[in-house]
Amino acid sequence: MTKPASMRGRPLASDRDPREKLLDTATLLFSSQGVAATTVAAIARQAGVTPAMVHYYFKNRDQLIEAVVDERLCLFVNSIWDPVTGNEAPEQMIMGIVERMIATTEIMPWIPALWVREVLSDGGELRERMVQRVPLAKLARFAENVGRSQRAGAINPGLEPALIFISVLGLTMLPLAMARTLKNGPMPPPPLNQVALLDKDVLKRHVTALLLHGLALPAASSTLHSDPHTDE
Amino acid sequence: MTKPASMRGRPLASDRDPREKLLDTATLLFSSQGVAATTVAAIARQAGVTPAMVHYYFKNRDQLIEAVVDERLCLFVNSIWDPVTGNEAPEQMIMGIVERMIATTEIMPWIPALWVREVLSDGGELRERMVQRVPLAKLARFAENVGRSQRAGAINPGLEPALIFISVLGLTMLPLAMARTLKNGPMPPPPLNQVALLDKDVLKRHVTALLLHGLALPAASSTLHSDPHTDE
Repeated sequence: MTKPASMRGRPLASDRDPREKLLDTATLLFSSQGVAATTVAAIARQAGVTPAMVHYYFKNRDQLIEAVVDERLCLFVNSIWDPVTGNEAPEQMIMGIVERMIATTEIMPWIPALWVREVLSDGGELRERMVQRVPLAKLARFAENVGRSQRAGAINPGLEPALIFISVLGLTMLPLAMARTLKNGPMPPPPLNQVALLDKDVLKRHVTALLLHGLALPAASSTLHSDPHTDE
Repeated sequence: MTKPASMRGRPLASDRDPREKLLDTATLLFSSQGVAATTVAAIARQAGVTPAMVHYYFKNRDQLIEAVVDERLCLFVNSIWDPVTGNEAPEQMIMGIVERMIATTEIMPWIPALWVREVLSDGGELRERMVQRVPLAKLARFAENVGRSQRAGAINPGLEPALIFISVLGLTMLPLAMARTLKNGPMPPPPLNQVALLDKDVLKRHVTALLLHGLALPAASSTLHSDPHTDE
């Protein structure tokens, strides 16, 4: 974690453009203390402007929240999904998503906490807005791609294509969201060292290994697996 | 979801014991509306008793929260970890955890939402209390078990033993926590049908297939996997 300070938030045009700076400030406060607890006045104060300035750029709090969703959270969603065509080899498609998810949280470190608190949580203030922005068509092509490869006998038949993206989300975003707890929690006994639990390269290696083997067909030499899948 | 109403909360001794009923009521309100938003008065009202009765059993709000953690959330943790010895075959140990996690949320359906909102979230009101109750010794034995099998050449060498339980948590609890969003969200296009996304048996089959193949050594016949693991 030896990045320059400018990388910790979003770099962008913040320093030049007061609207961008307000969006960044709102996003960071939403992530660290929650949307409900963050007033327009607090955002203005933190950004070093008057509340009138916030209203000048965003009219009201609701439109400011909408802008954070469209211009910050959706950047994350798009950075993950835009390159997906649904015609790639499935493991390439899935690993691309894992890589972009980890890489994008490096430059948007506020993402996992905001996502858990405000999108994943019941009562999260951004949940409904994000549900409306889920790239359903891309998700369907993703699941179709996996299903095609399964029918061609190239991929683990026990997997449910509709659940694979949710698995990727769980494998990747959950440990990223837990990082602060793991860092501040009691020192775990070996072999649970904090480096293994917090290093993003270790996470990427682990998730890659799990998914690539998980997608693969059963190993002929191994006795571990049963295939509970049957065609109902 | 055609269970009798008594299965939807926790069944227990609620109907006989007012203290148990208060704990159940508090737990359900904490899960559905959050700890911070739930007053002692609201818990009393919902349970049909006076606030004085709550204070009689729990002295104050803090002790009530402590009791919910010790007597409800820890039931979940213990039901998952108690049978783990660390001497099982690793895939048996891991699959046992997956099965108990899914089975326990069937009888404690409030668990995933409460866990996401109050334990996983930054600022979650139960996070600090749960961090103190993580069964670190069991987690260490779990990771040791996997590490031993890796060194014996029986398990995917690309996996990080310290991360496997977190992967299980992400693969299992995340979709359970997303169930309400998935149920109320826009109807997804095929092949993303809601049955596949919400059925616990489908989830169990999928996670089992992913983990069993993910744990296994590379399939000799497949070209999917690279092993990014090297012994540094």
